[in-house]
Amino acid sequence: MRELDFDAALERIRGLVWRTPLIPVSAPNADRVGHSVPAARQSDAWLKLESLQRTGSFKIRGAANRLLGLTPAERARGVVAVSSGNHGRAVAEVARILGIRATICVPDWADPSKLRSIRAAGARLIRAGPSYDEADERAAGLAVAEGLTRVHPFDDADVIEGQGTVGLELAEQLPGLGEVIVPLSGGGLVAGIGLALKRRGVRVVAVSAQRASVMLKSLEAGRPLRIPDEETIASALSGGIGDDNRLTLQLVREVVDEYIVVEEDDIRAAVRSAFRDHHLVVEGGGAVGLAALASGYRPRGRAAVIVSGGNIDAPALAAVAG
Amino acid sequence: MRELDFDAALERIRGLVWRTPLIPVSAPNADRVGHSVPAARQSDAWLKLESLQRTGSFKIRGAANRLLGLTPAERARGVVAVSSGNHGRAVAEVARILGIRATICVPDWADPSKLRSIRAAGARLIRAGPSYDEADERAAGLAVAEGLTRVHPFDDADVIEGQGTVGLELAEQLPGLGEVIVPLSGGGLVAGIGLALKRRGVRVVAVSAQRASVMLKSLEAGRPLRIPDEETIASALSGGIGDDNRLTLQLVREVVDEYIVVEEDDIRAAVRSAFRDHHLVVEGGGAVGLAALASGYRPRGRAAVIVSGGNIDAPALAAVAG
Repeated sequence: MRELDFDAALERIRGLVWRTPLIPVSAPNADRVGHSVPAARQSDAWLKLESLQRTGSFKIRGAANRLLGLTPAERARGVVAVSSGNHGRAVAEVARILGIRATICVPDWADPSKLRSIRAAGARLIRAGPSYDEADERAAGLAVAEGLTRVHPFDDADVIEGQGTVGLELAEQLPGLGEVIVPLSGGGLVAGIGLALKRRGVRVVAVSAQRASVMLKSLEAGRPLRIPDEETIASALSGGIGDDNRLTLQLVREVVDEYIVVEEDDIRAAVRSAFRDHHLVVEGGGAVGLAALASGYRPRGRAAVIVSGGNIDAPALAAVAG
Repeated sequence: MRELDFDAALERIRGLVWRTPLIPVSAPNADRVGHSVPAARQSDAWLKLESLQRTGSFKIRGAANRLLGLTPAERARGVVAVSSGNHGRAVAEVARILGIRATICVPDWADPSKLRSIRAAGARLIRAGPSYDEADERAAGLAVAEGLTRVHPFDDADVIEGQGTVGLELAEQLPGLGEVIVPLSGGGLVAGIGLALKRRGVRVVAVSAQRASVMLKSLEAGRPLRIPDEETIASALSGGIGDDNRLTLQLVREVVDEYIVVEEDDIRAAVRSAFRDHHLVVEGGGAVGLAALASGYRPRGRAAVIVSGGNIDAPALAAVAG
């Protein structure tokens, strides 16, 4: 893989993505940090709110970095992406702004509100079958058949570089950062943030949803596995890592210091806590870092939890938080 | 009234309140501002998220500034406050941290989740009757009978000064700020922000909920009116301004350049938009600034909308946003 330059990526995508806020984790009625960020203490945790990012998730960072790097000929032919929703929405939105034709392939179980957003951005939406892997194959087929450029959701240097800009912002926003807690799915976010922060000596903790842990099992097996999609409230983390994974399997292994697996109940508790304690709308997949805290994990030193996405509709949220 | 010193107040309350984030207003799929704040443009709007403030509303700023100014004897005797919920929660929380005994008087219609938070902070909670004015009289009676210090929700120099720190933060966060759009109820927030920003040449727009507009009608009458509480989704803005209003009636008149009245449907649309477009949990009273935009109001130049509170429970939110 080429050398990644996160500073250059942040500069490149600046016009298309937002710098997201950082807020303190506050248990109700707990005495926590004050108005400004104080010197590092024994343990304090902060939330990096990619749920407030444009398109409702961090995915627009990688999508923007990738699409801005296309040649004029590639732009003219269009792009195709597989997604459980958030990546597709991000690609569709960036493509719309740049005047690029986008095709998004999704599994049948993708969240309806995400599909609405993809359509609203003017993309062609293809429901490709009952599994993420089928949607992936459909995207690959369309790329060949129609000459479209694939925008991989994670296994791509430009995408990883884009996602890593979250880490760069964190380093600026939170002096004395000791640990970062990151949702793990295909590994693009973990690899990007890990590479951006490793050189700063930050410990990297990756959190998998128990029912969306293909990467974790592939790491254990030492090769990419195919595992049937399971139903989970963290559907944004579902999907395979690709039989021909080139980058993230290896990069995740290199950058992660500790793995945590959270169960459905912990994730529900985290979505509820985000709502009640923080007044935030966070989807299950975006809440696994908070779920790690809810399940009893205690970070070492000053920690940032990446809240990676907020695309959940009101009935689903009420079912969890009500 | 004494001269207000917002810088000193911000310094004083720093350990008890949070600096809240500012995010761009983004219609879905609209091309809006980028990663950093660009030079002022024709019209761009930002949200100042006091819904993410500790205790879920801006009220803790005034409460902290007031309670930190008490004498040791006053602290020892305790405090009493009337509130529809948010001010009471803020007073209860600050009192808990400072080790002060707090009594909160609320009308019967106060939101149950706010009452839970007040109790969770260890305060004595008194449901004082069907109207805000009755709760107000009960608080006044207890102050005399038990020697408690009243912490007025708005008609107090310390409280106004505390609320004004929102304006100070805004001025720092948003260069070129031309207009601020502020929910209007008892007038503490409008007066504080107005005084803090007037000297910087910022235009002040006050937004009343149509069914909670005692201040507006009192301004028209030229004296404090008593009006029966009406049911509204913006219940945080309900309640009288006090027969003996000393400060805010006059200050609001001085600082406000334009008044806007929003109706229930606009407020519902704003709560829904906050949820869907911004992934934020915002209560009706906190959303009236957004409702002004939803009803068609267009700010002049760069504008900040104060999103003043987020204390709404999941079923109520789902009923509006679902």
